[in-house]
Amino acid sequence: MKLVPLGDRVVLKQLEAEETTKSGIVLPGQAQEKPQQAEVIAVGPGGVVDGKEVKMEVATGNKVIYSKYAGTEVKLDGEEYIIVKQSDILAIVE
Amino acid sequence: MKLVPLGDRVVLKQLEAEETTKSGIVLPGQAQEKPQQAEVIAVGPGGVVDGKEVKMEVATGNKVIYSKYAGTEVKLDGEEYIIVKQSDILAIVE
Amino acid sequence: MKLVPLGDRVVLKQLEAEETTKSGIVLPGQAQEKPQQAEVIAVGPGGVVDGKEVKMEVATGNKVIYSKYAGTEVKLDGEEYIIVKQSDILAIVE
Amino acid sequence: MKLVPLGDRVVLKQLEAEETTKSGIVLPGQAQEKPQQAEVIAVGPGGVVDGKEVKMEVATGNKVIYSKYAGTEVKLDGEEYIIVKQSDILAIVE
Amino acid sequence: MKLVPLGDRVVLKQLEAEETTKSGIVLPGQAQEKPQQAEVIAVGPGGVVDGKEVKMEVATGNKVIYSKYAGTEVKLDGEEYIIVKQSDILAIVE
Amino acid sequence: MKLVPLGDRVVLKQLEAEETTKSGIVLPGQAQEKPQQAEVIAVGPGGVVDGKEVKMEVATGNKVIYSKYAGTEVKLDGEEYIIVKQSDILAIVE
Amino acid sequence: MKLVPLGDRVVLKQLEAEETTKSGIVLPGQAQEKPQQAEVIAVGPGGVVDGKEVKMEVATGNKVIYSKYAGTEVKLDGEEYIIVKQSDILAIVE
Repeated sequence: MKLVPLGDRVVLKQLEAEETTKSGIVLPGQAQEKPQQAEVIAVGPGGVVDGKEVKMEVATGNKVIYSKYAGTEVKLDGEEYIIVKQSDILAIVE
Repeated sequence: MKLVPLGDRVVLKQLEAEETTKSGIVLPGQAQEKPQQAEVIAVGPGGVVDGKEVKMEVATGNKVIYSKYAGTEVKLDGEEYIIVKQSDILAIVE
Repeated sequence: MKLVPLGDRVVLKQLEAEETTKSGIVLPGQAQEKPQQAEVIAVGPGGVVDGKEVKMEVATGNKVIYSKYAGTEVKLDGEEYIIVKQSDILAIVE
Repeated sequence: MKLVPLGDRVVLKQLEAEETTKSGIVLPGQAQEKPQQAEVIAVGPGGVVDGKEVKMEVATGNKVIYSKYAGTEVKLDGEEYIIVKQSDILAIVE
Repeated sequence: MKLVPLGDRVVLKQLEAEETTKSGIVLPGQAQEKPQQAEVIAVGPGGVVDGKEVKMEVATGNKVIYSKYAGTEVKLDGEEYIIVKQSDILAIVE
Repeated sequence: MKLVPLGDRVVLKQLEAEETTKSGIVLPGQAQEKPQQAEVIAVGPGGVVDGKEVKMEVATGNKVIYSKYAGTEVKLDGEEYIIVKQSDILAIVE
Repeated sequence: MKLVPLGDRVVLKQLEAEETTKSGIVLPGQAQEKPQQAEVIAVGPGGVVDGKEVKMEVATGNKVIYSKYAGTEVKLDGEEYIIVKQSDILAIVE
């Protein structure tokens, strides 16, 4: 089985374990992004998403930094993936 | 009786039982998506939705991953369905 | 007396009693939709609503599923109605 | 003295006394509309409002249902009025 | 010294003392407008504001009703003024 | 060293000390603007900002009233500046 | 290894240590920007971002002031970087 993302979604496989979060009170409205390194597993077709043309800039195999809070964790055949929108990918690591 | 979704709505039938949620305090403003596998039962016609042209990319019978928090549970003839917008479907499982 | 809805509004008459809500703390920002079955009593003319062209897709007599939280309850001549925007109607039941 | 509404504003005169609100905790993000019957006293010219063309659909003398939370109460010469945007008027009562 | 408002801003001089606010807990997301009568002291040039063409509809000397929560109080040469956007002016009193 | 603002940003130098804030509970969603007088030190080039054409209307040396909550305080060579977007400037004082 | 930012993202290297934050209660919805000086390390290609054309105005080596709350901290090869959108850069320091 494989995941075929829709629109501007990208399927990622996390490369590093999550760091321990420092305990504290999270307040709504403040950006709280824990950066993550991941490998791109599958890339959606792009096209018109929410009325706007989106061109996919990442490719399968890219190692990327993404904002964790935007992603959705998915478990398939015992493997864990993260599905994000391309706009949640901040940079490619080369 | 059957459900005929409007606009960019999609009728889903859940494939797996919900996982137990880890107890914790949910704070507003943070994305809290519990991924779900489901089968597509019916697909809306698409067209102009909220002023934007939407083309339907999923088809009846597709097995999909969706974001639970966007869906609405509906009970019809003793069967439970979930109605989501297509943009809440993250990927097709093949 | 009768209700003539404006714009993309639809007048509904509820078909089923509301289910008892499970007690719990409602947190802002999370979609909290209790699906409802209703009959369409009157349909607005559509047209340009909030700067966007809206075409009405439901008709008087349709049995529909809608999201309760978007509706406004109205009492007229002892009868209770719900006025919703068409976009709050999820599906037609056939 | 009379009120001349600007843009898509409509001046209303309430027809019924407000119902007693059931005590309870109001949580942000949930629509909390108490429907109201009122008579239309004055109608703004419409035109471009917030960058969108608005055509006025109600006329002086119309009896209408509106969403209370969007209105602003105004006292003039001992009379109480409510000023709403036309989009807060749900239906005309005929 | 005089105030020359920018864009769609309007400088007002309040005509009536503020009414005593009834004590109560203010909850976010609910419109809480205390209507105010004021005289128009200066009117901005209008033009393109936030990407939208705005035409000024009020003139110096007009007596207007405005929504207090949108205004900013300014003290100049011992006089108090309120600067609002034209869209916060609800009606002209004639 | 000098500050060269980007886009529709404006660098201000405050003219007056902040007034003592009356203690009270600040609730989210309510506009809480403390007006401020300042001198314009530097003006960004304007142009397309967030997809909208912005024309700069203020000039170096102008004395302006601005909304404090939108500004960012910056310390450079021992001097304190405030950087705001032009839309946060309410009026020019002449 | 190096970071190649996507779209309108910019990779920064902080120049100064964060100032001690004055203790106090942070309330949601209020802008809370702690200005930061940083050097530009890498600049994304710009282009169409979220449906809007973005032209990059900063260059590698620029010393800039940015809003901290919009940035995401990234650790690569023991070095710490901050990735921001160009719109979070307030001014260039010359």
